[in-house]
Amino acid sequence: MPTYRMLLEYDGTGFHGWQIQPGHVSVQEALEQALAVVVPERPRIVGSGRTDAGVHARGQVAHFRVNETLDPPRIRASLNGLLPETVAVLALDPAPDHFHARYDARGRRYAYYVRTLPIVLERHARVLVRPAPDFDAMNRAAEGLLGTHDFSAFCRSRSETMNRVCTVNRAEWHRERRRGDAQFNIVADRFLHGMVRAIVGTLLQIGRGKRVESDMGRILASLDRREAGPAAPSRGLVLEEVIYASN
Amino acid sequence: MPTYRMLLEYDGTGFHGWQIQPGHVSVQEALEQALAVVVPERPRIVGSGRTDAGVHARGQVAHFRVNETLDPPRIRASLNGLLPETVAVLALDPAPDHFHARYDARGRRYAYYVRTLPIVLERHARVLVRPAPDFDAMNRAAEGLLGTHDFSAFCRSRSETMNRVCTVNRAEWHRERRRGDAQFNIVADRFLHGMVRAIVGTLLQIGRGKRVESDMGRILASLDRREAGPAAPSRGLVLEEVIYASN
Repeated sequence: MPTYRMLLEYDGTGFHGWQIQPGHVSVQEALEQALAVVVPERPRIVGSGRTDAGVHARGQVAHFRVNETLDPPRIRASLNGLLPETVAVLALDPAPDHFHARYDARGRRYAYYVRTLPIVLERHARVLVRPAPDFDAMNRAAEGLLGTHDFSAFCRSRSETMNRVCTVNRAEWHRERRRGDAQFNIVADRFLHGMVRAIVGTLLQIGRGKRVESDMGRILASLDRREAGPAAPSRGLVLEEVIYASN
Repeated sequence: MPTYRMLLEYDGTGFHGWQIQPGHVSVQEALEQALAVVVPERPRIVGSGRTDAGVHARGQVAHFRVNETLDPPRIRASLNGLLPETVAVLALDPAPDHFHARYDARGRRYAYYVRTLPIVLERHARVLVRPAPDFDAMNRAAEGLLGTHDFSAFCRSRSETMNRVCTVNRAEWHRERRRGDAQFNIVADRFLHGMVRAIVGTLLQIGRGKRVESDMGRILASLDRREAGPAAPSRGLVLEEVIYASN
């Protein structure tokens, strides 16, 4: 069956996350409703993974399969005309028949945005942390996340995911030159529910001196979500990129 | 009199510009109202310059004078608590008695943000330009703006400003690596009403092949606003920085 791959941007503020859930507004449903208007079927749209309520995406990838060959530029333009201003299809391209947005993904990159001064223009996608935490201490602590570990301590406790082993390839804070902006970049083969927000919440406790740097290894080893810090607010989190073998 | 200098960020979307005008909501008025609550006077707040309706600022500078010495951190926190979420005081510092936000400013830097793909997360401060214009041609045309010229051709015709000579030190498009983002950076000693938006609108006509690059010099020499292109939308424009002798 003809398969199409979409690159998506969305503002998660008004959505109950990516995944369709009865009684809630989801990004997946908004996309499926728009697609059903422009193709003579109602294809299921499969994302690279779920994003939680309030989490944004600048580079979510999804696929769908249809019975006939489509005209991608026309379909993309129609979808963008139908979608709310909070969701956009940045690209729509034919993909190999077997392409699967979730199974084929090799990794994901998330970024968490904070600022140490009041936030106006980016207030929907950046979180105020004040006074400024110790970013160097947070970076040293984040090094303890690198490699392959069971991340149960950073997985929402009601998650049904059994395999909680992830490989983190990058985890570092980057301070931007100007006016107190900073972002935490994290790349892993996969992420568990609430994982980035739990990690950021824990790092911020370290950065504020409420925990010591060496706690990170102990928390990870505990496999217990109660050992980690509180989840940082969802509005600071953006799924930036999904990585495939041939991007 | 004790003089204080403020660094301000604002989302211009809901404002009729910087300047107080009867019957309109302005940034200056929002600030003066908040300040009147926290100091026992109603000081006038003087900005480095006006920004037009819908134009944003990440680095507006303003000053005010009061009869008594203030506690800047406390005043700043109070102001940020009173102001709407669309205005923030990023910094509030004592300034020399003679400091004047407008007269002392040596230059201003504006940036105009566009994107060649649909815009979601930055939709309030970036403008869609599609198909992608020829940024190289726009950059060659922008070189014609450098130096000291009478910019009447790029000044709103109902402006009462008599001296329309400005010195432009920088005028260039910078494409960001990812997904069609670009910004136009322009630095000048001063700007006339509607100047950046008229310049961007004209450059976009060149980038779309509706005008030739060499038109820029001819338009500038005409001193006639009707020769330039239409003003680009205000929401793409941000006052990034005001430059002083000792910043």
